[in-house]
Amino acid sequence: MRACHRAVGEWLEPIGIRGAVDAAGNLRAVYPGQNPAAPRLLIGSHLDTVPNAGAYDGVLGLLLAIALIEELGGERLPFAVELVGFSEEEGVRFGAPFIGSRALVGRMDPALLGLRDREGVTVQEAIERFGLDPSRLPEAAIADDVLAFLEFHIEQGPTLEHLGLPLAAVEAIVGQTRSTLTFRGQANHAETTTMALRRDALAEAAEWMVAVEREAQSTAGLVATVGAVEARPGATNVIPGEACLTLDLRHASDPVRTRAGRRLTALAEEISARRRLSLESRVLLEQPAVALDPFLTAQAEEAIRGAGCTPHRMPSGAGHDAMILAERVPAAMIFLRSPGGISHDPFESVWPEDVAYAIASGVGLLKQLAVSRAFLLNTRTSRA
Amino acid sequence: MRACHRAVGEWLEPIGIRGAVDAAGNLRAVYPGQNPAAPRLLIGSHLDTVPNAGAYDGVLGLLLAIALIEELGGERLPFAVELVGFSEEEGVRFGAPFIGSRALVGRMDPALLGLRDREGVTVQEAIERFGLDPSRLPEAAIADDVLAFLEFHIEQGPTLEHLGLPLAAVEAIVGQTRSTLTFRGQANHAETTTMALRRDALAEAAEWMVAVEREAQSTAGLVATVGAVEARPGATNVIPGEACLTLDLRHASDPVRTRAGRRLTALAEEISARRRLSLESRVLLEQPAVALDPFLTAQAEEAIRGAGCTPHRMPSGAGHDAMILAERVPAAMIFLRSPGGISHDPFESVWPEDVAYAIASGVGLLKQLAVSRAFLLNTRTSRA
Repeated sequence: MRACHRAVGEWLEPIGIRGAVDAAGNLRAVYPGQNPAAPRLLIGSHLDTVPNAGAYDGVLGLLLAIALIEELGGERLPFAVELVGFSEEEGVRFGAPFIGSRALVGRMDPALLGLRDREGVTVQEAIERFGLDPSRLPEAAIADDVLAFLEFHIEQGPTLEHLGLPLAAVEAIVGQTRSTLTFRGQANHAETTTMALRRDALAEAAEWMVAVEREAQSTAGLVATVGAVEARPGATNVIPGEACLTLDLRHASDPVRTRAGRRLTALAEEISARRRLSLESRVLLEQPAVALDPFLTAQAEEAIRGAGCTPHRMPSGAGHDAMILAERVPAAMIFLRSPGGISHDPFESVWPEDVAYAIASGVGLLKQLAVSRAFLLNTRTSRA
Repeated sequence: MRACHRAVGEWLEPIGIRGAVDAAGNLRAVYPGQNPAAPRLLIGSHLDTVPNAGAYDGVLGLLLAIALIEELGGERLPFAVELVGFSEEEGVRFGAPFIGSRALVGRMDPALLGLRDREGVTVQEAIERFGLDPSRLPEAAIADDVLAFLEFHIEQGPTLEHLGLPLAAVEAIVGQTRSTLTFRGQANHAETTTMALRRDALAEAAEWMVAVEREAQSTAGLVATVGAVEARPGATNVIPGEACLTLDLRHASDPVRTRAGRRLTALAEEISARRRLSLESRVLLEQPAVALDPFLTAQAEEAIRGAGCTPHRMPSGAGHDAMILAERVPAAMIFLRSPGGISHDPFESVWPEDVAYAIASGVGLLKQLAVSRAFLLNTRTSRA
């Protein structure tokens, strides 16, 4: 991360500003506005990624922010632009994502600081070992002068490629439900148990999985995934007595998602009753959707159109720092097409022309906002 | 096994005959016929079972044979009755089943003798260490004077209990096909890949599993089992790129079984094509059905009726020593009801009254055969 900060620092030189690392390890650099009292617009994304990842996840968002400033060619706006390279967005080291952005919204609580990595080092200790001072974390929180947050990020999915579009305005981070289901029947000899006498847990699970896919296909915007399954005892010639599987359910609308979850659970119960099996289901995570700012999203769409692209609105299936910042300030995101939908993989990439469209859109957006009374007067008190 | 042989030897004392262990470790004892030149009827089952098994699998068959002789009260029949307690039916130690019965049909070939257990001991060495002489294996093979083989065995399935019947005449050992199928799609982020763009290997596998169950339910006598399944990479939030599963297919008729196998493979290919996935299927085992002797099966049914039970005919899903003996002589089996369908488990059991019915049926069958010209004249040359 130190080498990463050093590299970003070098990229900042041509635009004449210097970065500083806050107590949460976020790299922050301010491009001043027309006057010292100007409010701030934050633009950024995370600098960490997952192991064996590609070169664009996160870091491209900060690079684009630098490129936007470069494109301004020294022009000052009625707001300062603060570039932010967030730390620890993925949650790889401590299992908790969004550590850097949580510091910006003042949510670095003792529970978070006490989390330990695999070697037993706490977040607090890691901050100290990096040469930072945890007691100064409150200073990392944003003040009331922040107008909004803007994040560019690769889509990490195939939707834009499928539509043949370079960019999208993100309208929401979808909510998600993660659960496990265990169907329990009766293990028995495959060779001697007639079909009518079976209580096959995997056959039941299969019937339910087909229903899960059908439910998602028939509900616009819903994605449902059974990612893991295990049949027990798991021998070729033994009828499975138990089948355990995971369900991952996501939708931009919480009511749609929770309704689908209830329907799928009810269906599992109905199938279990008919087949004389028992069902145990546990919800492991229930995370509500986060709406991004409608005004900024409309402005982003307009900027995308202004750059010569067909605008598209879409929800983000994955979580992003913008989701955390949205707790405090209006937030917006622009997605760049991911070739092959590939991400978190060395083959992760972007098209250079899409990056050019993103820069043009970003500059357009900055100029739109610079003349928008609605934006400039819409201080964060309106969201408090 | 030595302790087992000793115990059986003690049970033989009251009926006045002595056992001897042949070179394959089978315990054999002859109850003489009306004259020294009388042909033989073999009755028996295996003395080994699986680890953590119950008290009835196999050994009950030899006990019943002893009980039948006891019931004769010294009466001599026009044929001798040779009681056989087979060794190594399950194949636990060397991975190869039916070692004892293969010796009786002269199929102890060098490949079998060279198989090794987990400690590297070969079958040949194990025979020697037990104090037996492998060079005398040919003497264990049955001669031309054997009229038939009869085996009593617990059903090891729930069919008779479901029908409320104590006994069944087994008409065939079903054939089986074991195969593995691997569906290959594209692993991807669960959060960002819309349903329309997925190539979910597990969703496809589920659709196919439902079809497998339907095929078996709509084909009389067919059993089809998917006993094991694995989705890869197997994470909650990753669409499975690969799904591997096993298929176990059994039917008393080889054409019905192979036709079902072809239909299910064709269906998997059709679903794969529609879903843009690829399919790899491998047949691991293709074992034809073995018909038991129709005349003896009819006689067994009649004996069951004579004992006061409703006769029932059924195939055996599992393999038995009778399947091996049927290569050389007419063979028949009688199943005893398995409470709860449980077997290969400490809770394996039989009802005492079912054992009484089995003894009555067996004595009846011996007396029927003793006066059957068709049986007494049907020497094994008719099957050669």
